[in-house]
Amino acid sequence: MPKRLAYFGPAGTHTEQACITYDRAAARIPFATIPLVAAAVDTGQADEGMVPIENSVGGSVSATLDLLIHDSTLFIRRELVLPIKHFLLARRGAEVRNIKVIFSHPQALEQCQGYLAEHFAQAEPIASMSTAAAVEEMLKRGGGAAAIGTERASTLYDTEILARGIEDHPNNMTRFVVLAPKDSPRTGDDKTSICFSFDDDAPGILHSVLEEFAKRGINLTKIESRPTREELGRYIFLADLEGHREDTIVREALDRVRVQVSLLKVYGSYPRHRDPL
Amino acid sequence: MPKRLAYFGPAGTHTEQACITYDRAAARIPFATIPLVAAAVDTGQADEGMVPIENSVGGSVSATLDLLIHDSTLFIRRELVLPIKHFLLARRGAEVRNIKVIFSHPQALEQCQGYLAEHFAQAEPIASMSTAAAVEEMLKRGGGAAAIGTERASTLYDTEILARGIEDHPNNMTRFVVLAPKDSPRTGDDKTSICFSFDDDAPGILHSVLEEFAKRGINLTKIESRPTREELGRYIFLADLEGHREDTIVREALDRVRVQVSLLKVYGSYPRHRDPL
Repeated sequence: MPKRLAYFGPAGTHTEQACITYDRAAARIPFATIPLVAAAVDTGQADEGMVPIENSVGGSVSATLDLLIHDSTLFIRRELVLPIKHFLLARRGAEVRNIKVIFSHPQALEQCQGYLAEHFAQAEPIASMSTAAAVEEMLKRGGGAAAIGTERASTLYDTEILARGIEDHPNNMTRFVVLAPKDSPRTGDDKTSICFSFDDDAPGILHSVLEEFAKRGINLTKIESRPTREELGRYIFLADLEGHREDTIVREALDRVRVQVSLLKVYGSYPRHRDPL
Repeated sequence: MPKRLAYFGPAGTHTEQACITYDRAAARIPFATIPLVAAAVDTGQADEGMVPIENSVGGSVSATLDLLIHDSTLFIRRELVLPIKHFLLARRGAEVRNIKVIFSHPQALEQCQGYLAEHFAQAEPIASMSTAAAVEEMLKRGGGAAAIGTERASTLYDTEILARGIEDHPNNMTRFVVLAPKDSPRTGDDKTSICFSFDDDAPGILHSVLEEFAKRGINLTKIESRPTREELGRYIFLADLEGHREDTIVREALDRVRVQVSLLKVYGSYPRHRDPL
């Protein structure tokens, strides 16, 4: 039986593209929100769930971080890093000079702001709930409309491609994670994601936590503080570190951290993403 | 002459509310994007600029962080923290039971997801470019439409208020910063915002930077790593620390950090936000 893979949909988004890259044979089940993806895995409706966690231009995906911090006991089983290419799509036969309105999610419109100002200064941007919804609305509107969407959406909806790669930042990448009831076994080239927080905000507690990793030569590939939902100015720290939670030095460091903090959650260990050569 | 205060508009947004709280007498000039607010201050079209930097539910505002990191030499002159209250607005005379569509920015719709599922499960959410644009579109649509917007927008557009404080998280707060050509003088209760990065990602460099603050008893109130635009996995660190950059221990720590990093930018020092008693 193929794997049942829940994802933050609808079809035609970058997250669906990540699912195809991860496991082409999986049965893909779209959900409208990130919490619903996690719920599908929790209840056994899906085996695993694919969600975006971080974008090189937009930063962290809050809904995913909040899910991991507050609302889920799922593990991170895999990470994937994909280039994000925005395409300008229109109805078959539409012509660039007739485009009067451009649909997309506000974030995609923002990421293509420079391109739109240069080539479509007169066109009106219109917000949609997702880049896939933008393509649907564009098709309903007709030949004077375009939408910013994915290459995958151009296939799914059989659209014209007016332009490719219109994002302002050429290195627009998104990191996706696969959520599952279990993380991955050791491969020797792994990462581990954790979060921690303190009751006390005395100077130096963060420093003394990081010292446990530094003195064992464990590199942090990411650290981020997020405000707790309760109060701006109180933070939960999220960190990614090199190594597997079953590696001796990682296990030692985590044990030493655990006694210093009020909360430590280990989201799991998984093979580090490496671009195929 | 009143101060000319640029802000991330349009009128009727939470950012306009922050401007009124900061300086009711200022002449407020709305701009459509955060970079345009900074450009207005850079060119002297405005004296200062108000932008959101962080929300307790949604996390950091990427456009503001990227502006400070990459594109601006302005200083942070002040911080303000405001509660974010979402209001459900409709045309005068509209009735709750007739509401079929609800306009707002996708982020506001997301922040009220629980409320909408409970009270308006049948209504269709429609994306807008801002909460203020949502109110305008709702008014055009007529009595079957509502919009999620601010209390300020209900006054500006003379709407009915169908419900107040419909956000799912009761402690939804946004931190705003005032950008200006100069930061603020020492008050004795200050914060300083910085960013730094390293060419090298050897284990422990972040730790040794934080040590300079920890050993002087300087508390970090925030730390965040952001992917550089060039590559996921290479980070720029943003930190807020207690104290003014002209305090002796802060100056010493910053001098010691400067020699260890490839980039150090001090965004300025400003009075720490304290809630009025």
